[in-house]
Amino acid sequence: MSSFFREQLPEPPYYAVIFSSLKKRIDSEYQATAEKMIELAKTMPGFLGYESISSELASITISYWTDLESIANWKHHPDHLKAQERGKSEWYESYTIRISRVESNHEFGRLF
Amino acid sequence: MSSFFREQLPEPPYYAVIFSSLKKRIDSEYQATAEKMIELAKTMPGFLGYESISSELASITISYWTDLESIANWKHHPDHLKAQERGKSEWYESYTIRISRVESNHEFGRLF
Repeated sequence: MSSFFREQLPEPPYYAVIFSSLKKRIDSEYQATAEKMIELAKTMPGFLGYESISSELASITISYWTDLESIANWKHHPDHLKAQERGKSEWYESYTIRISRVESNHEFGRLF
Repeated sequence: MSSFFREQLPEPPYYAVIFSSLKKRIDSEYQATAEKMIELAKTMPGFLGYESISSELASITISYWTDLESIANWKHHPDHLKAQERGKSEWYESYTIRISRVESNHEFGRLF
């Protein structure tokens, strides 16, 4: 399994949630839940886009948001909370989440 | 080709350089240069660590630094400048570099 996704974003400042994870296992329910969470995030106020790459059991997903309040709302969405619980009990060996404020942006080449 | 690497970092605040790229091609010189740049970054003042996943022609690499001045010094290191030029002319289809200030950090599970 491998995937890569990237989006054009507005000019900084905005916020990035850097989620890097190592899974102990993945299954069809993991995949379905991950896709559902992305679709749900897209409906949340303040969501700007995401970048993600997965390789075997590892992945890095960065979601971009307008502000910290939007990130907190996303963190506490009931469906997301349920997915987080399943993630910790069933799928993830470990993960790190870092919340950062993007201050500058530089692009090379045609992204799309 | 796939790789994943992650490091334990000090408590925030610190800075993250989010580098997401799509390559038009890779070759043994790309690999050697990428490895050399990581070894060089490790010798730079202010370097804290990095996380990286590559998959086929895509990759996300996040390097972590103590401050913006260290990031600027790394950007302008002569060997790094040469690698950047080769990257643009030979290897990268496109890339985005975002500089962000990490404000909080949350971990789950045993990272090491």
